[in-house]
Amino acid sequence: MARILTLTLNPALDLTVRLARLEPGEVNRSETLLTHAAGKGVNVAQVLADLGHQVSVGGFLGEANPEAFEALIARRGFGDVFIRVPGETRSNIKIAEQDGRVTDINAPGPLVDERAQEELLERVAIIAPEFDAVVVAGSLPRGVSPQWFQGLLEALKGLGLKVALDTSGEALRAGLNAGPWMVKPNTEELAEAFDNATDAVSQLHQQGVEHVVVSDGAAGVNWYGPGLALRASPPKVTVASTVGAGDSLLAGMVHGLLSGDTPEQTLRRATAIAAMAVTQIGFGISDDAQLARLESDVDVRALTEQ
Amino acid sequence: MARILTLTLNPALDLTVRLARLEPGEVNRSETLLTHAAGKGVNVAQVLADLGHQVSVGGFLGEANPEAFEALIARRGFGDVFIRVPGETRSNIKIAEQDGRVTDINAPGPLVDERAQEELLERVAIIAPEFDAVVVAGSLPRGVSPQWFQGLLEALKGLGLKVALDTSGEALRAGLNAGPWMVKPNTEELAEAFDNATDAVSQLHQQGVEHVVVSDGAAGVNWYGPGLALRASPPKVTVASTVGAGDSLLAGMVHGLLSGDTPEQTLRRATAIAAMAVTQIGFGISDDAQLARLESDVDVRALTEQ
Repeated sequence: MARILTLTLNPALDLTVRLARLEPGEVNRSETLLTHAAGKGVNVAQVLADLGHQVSVGGFLGEANPEAFEALIARRGFGDVFIRVPGETRSNIKIAEQDGRVTDINAPGPLVDERAQEELLERVAIIAPEFDAVVVAGSLPRGVSPQWFQGLLEALKGLGLKVALDTSGEALRAGLNAGPWMVKPNTEELAEAFDNATDAVSQLHQQGVEHVVVSDGAAGVNWYGPGLALRASPPKVTVASTVGAGDSLLAGMVHGLLSGDTPEQTLRRATAIAAMAVTQIGFGISDDAQLARLESDVDVRALTEQ
Repeated sequence: MARILTLTLNPALDLTVRLARLEPGEVNRSETLLTHAAGKGVNVAQVLADLGHQVSVGGFLGEANPEAFEALIARRGFGDVFIRVPGETRSNIKIAEQDGRVTDINAPGPLVDERAQEELLERVAIIAPEFDAVVVAGSLPRGVSPQWFQGLLEALKGLGLKVALDTSGEALRAGLNAGPWMVKPNTEELAEAFDNATDAVSQLHQQGVEHVVVSDGAAGVNWYGPGLALRASPPKVTVASTVGAGDSLLAGMVHGLLSGDTPEQTLRRATAIAAMAVTQIGFGISDDAQLARLESDVDVRALTEQ
């Protein structure tokens, strides 16, 4: 069991409504509305907890609507390292229709000022000795610059933590300058961050990134670590929802590496956990037997064998 | 100043998102998402508080998401008579587009069991002596029968409270059997509750209803009280949103009658408060000078003069 902190700087409250058919301009009646605390780091934390780790969650949380997060934190026994900021944590409304069409409406989050940013830095400096690794995942909130974000990652690394990064765009480019321990872009995010993606992996290794994990959805995962290059292909599964699949992969990779599993087993299980997320409306390890079956169906081979 | 209780058995959390254009099946970005505590009785309470009354709010509230209501209650200094029930208070999502089109998605509320219903009856029996009147407004939640609702109104009346009722459908039909002090249907609600709406008013008076206030939107308001029949026509205003207009009318009528205003002044001000609600995105008495102007522009006449 490892002690892991996840940071979500821009968490979101997911509001999912289900209805037969969305009729714009009309009064629609939904069968259900589900509210849950979300955001990449929050999702990663839940999968890590399923895998038996001791987890704390942090970042910035709007003080006007923290309840869903506080309830999740209490239920999962997480440590709470969220800095409260004025305003509401952003809400992402998902409207799911019977035919499978999903309409998203994403609202802006709170503005995070310099004082709150400073507070988070001070907080993590104090608690860093309690953790083996930190996962920093998701987008940047309004008010937080890529430069500050790079500084945060450098500080975390300087505090002796293994830093795993999952973000995109400007934040990914800035974050990579800090040379995190692991990065998990998907193929589009990697291509976006590098003008020439063909030697992206060697560039990253030169920048001090030990583990480059590149996900490509159902096509599989490539992992470039120190002296290893592996590719995993997941089994074909019926897709219920891809929400949390990338977060599950990241949690699985962190789990395997911190647990001292072999590289092959690390990638196999991480890929299976991601495939399992895809079979669910939510994500997480709800069924050990199903996970074992998925694991045995993952194909892992050295990249040179392809 | 009167002491008034409002009961909202099925309150709602209104989530309003604004965006340029809703594209179904796509990821839409909204400029704002506003959350606020709503429901007819909660709205009436706010207007009554604006008019200087001492107000308590009650009904049933989902214990999973009471925060917006508790914040409103604290901000307005309301007494809190809400019985907490398992589950989430229903959310009504309003998607407002730039061209003025509004799409509503209304979610179901919590199931209110017999025990919670009993608890509310016990609670109001204890606190009834603290109040002059009670406003019971809005729809019935799942689990609450029209028969129980009638019993609630009879109990409130038996406790010596002036009971003002604003609901529709089955709940209105059942509630009228209790012979409330005042009822405020709109023309459609009245027609729906009576097979023959032409003698609805005299039927209601025979059932012991003292004040029948029938609203007809921009066309005006008819008020049939003991020995009086008045009609008010509001001034023409630019419509920003009709949300809370009916609740404002009801609050204004209760205010005038409890304050001992003349019938003419009671109906004039109530109609002006409703017109003022229409000019706002929200409702409430934000501008006394504007209210005075609207009041002077309301036309009130005896119904026989028409």
